[in-house]
Amino acid sequence: MSESGSGRGAAGAGRDIVTAGVVIIGNEILSGRTQDENLAFLARGLNTVGVRLREARVIPDDAAVIAATVNELRGKFDYVFTTGGIGPTHDDITAQSIADAFGVPLVLHPEAKRLLETHYQPGELNEARLRMARVPEGAVLLLNPISRAPGFRIGNVFVLPGVPSIMQAIFDELKHRLKGGVPVLARSLSCQLGEGTLAADLARLQARYPDVEIGSYPYFRRGDFGVTLVLRGTERTRLEQATAELAALIRTLGGEPREGLREG
Amino acid sequence: MSESGSGRGAAGAGRDIVTAGVVIIGNEILSGRTQDENLAFLARGLNTVGVRLREARVIPDDAAVIAATVNELRGKFDYVFTTGGIGPTHDDITAQSIADAFGVPLVLHPEAKRLLETHYQPGELNEARLRMARVPEGAVLLLNPISRAPGFRIGNVFVLPGVPSIMQAIFDELKHRLKGGVPVLARSLSCQLGEGTLAADLARLQARYPDVEIGSYPYFRRGDFGVTLVLRGTERTRLEQATAELAALIRTLGGEPREGLREG
Repeated sequence: MSESGSGRGAAGAGRDIVTAGVVIIGNEILSGRTQDENLAFLARGLNTVGVRLREARVIPDDAAVIAATVNELRGKFDYVFTTGGIGPTHDDITAQSIADAFGVPLVLHPEAKRLLETHYQPGELNEARLRMARVPEGAVLLLNPISRAPGFRIGNVFVLPGVPSIMQAIFDELKHRLKGGVPVLARSLSCQLGEGTLAADLARLQARYPDVEIGSYPYFRRGDFGVTLVLRGTERTRLEQATAELAALIRTLGGEPREGLREG
Repeated sequence: MSESGSGRGAAGAGRDIVTAGVVIIGNEILSGRTQDENLAFLARGLNTVGVRLREARVIPDDAAVIAATVNELRGKFDYVFTTGGIGPTHDDITAQSIADAFGVPLVLHPEAKRLLETHYQPGELNEARLRMARVPEGAVLLLNPISRAPGFRIGNVFVLPGVPSIMQAIFDELKHRLKGGVPVLARSLSCQLGEGTLAADLARLQARYPDVEIGSYPYFRRGDFGVTLVLRGTERTRLEQATAELAALIRTLGGEPREGLREG
């Protein structure tokens, strides 16, 4: 809650806030057949390079919806990442939809074609597979160690496949080339107090640390219940101070703080 | 891809298409700390009562973003479901944000207060916990067997907690009261052919069955790879015909179709 501003255009500004949006494309996620894993992976990965994921959308394999969503988000955030829909079958319409969004034609990318030629046996690279070498005009390929169905970047939009292992390989390659902002550090403390017992003091602590975002997440597992408090901020000293005060507060209320997540 | 039209306003029309949008509210999902489970649960649950999930958004704990997102989606879909942000702590701002979206005040709901009084020991129901009894004026409570932090409905928007077990209990109570449209039936066939081998014939099959949506999902697991083809449609006979033709097609190409998912 302490973060604000869209950060649009901040990518080059060094220590500013850099933001991203994610677009998960796929009817299989919206039907509940497939549990998405890509969002959490991208969220964590972006975090590590100082990019803040501000919004994610899960949308169907619908060309108009894909184009409109990408156009909205690329104007709103520094980076946009899409997953899904760049394979060889009829329902893989992401590349064409992104070309539509940018108002450019879909063209055969010679290097992508060459990569596919080295990957497939002679005779296997049919028309359908060649679709994977078609990208919006002006797009740059995003290579992956597995070397099939390359992703691509056009403007601030990174287009990745939906298969998690391939998506992850491509993203891990590219993430270090993103211009990140100031990284967000995180600490967490868990205890067995009820959220309602902590709430008033927690709100006062939050008010005194507007630069540290404090989130409260109750958990219930096998007879055990309690709350995990996550603190996020960019200034290490302030973050450590707030965490120490929170630990003291938990003890005052009769709880025992246990340290958890520690990022940065 | 064979489905079109937003279905807005179709909720009362019996056999029409009824649509929904989901809004996952929570910084913990966008930071990657928590893997969301609510989307897949809601997607499957909506499917079983004939409601089609068209879009999901994951947004931060930001009042303006929550209000704008809910207002956009409630105009676009028959139903909207939100999860997260209705607990007792300072970061639980969903109820107020939804009130803002509808332009109504947040009020103490007497029945919600009574429920909380029966749940907590005398003296435990402090100001923070009473926040959970505050709902937008005109909202109807959504009770749950666990009887804490009731959700609520206002207009076509259902506001649910983020903790999966409680969210699920409330949703399972309410889903049978939704006015569903014609249910979508599904079949799936898997085989070890490459997607690119199948693609051309698959596109022709799809063209002859515009009323059956055919999705192609490659999989790679422990040395095994192949593709799962999911067929969805509302007419059982057409769906069975398309599935039988697809099985024959797979055999023609040298594959062995294995039956998987079967819904309806």
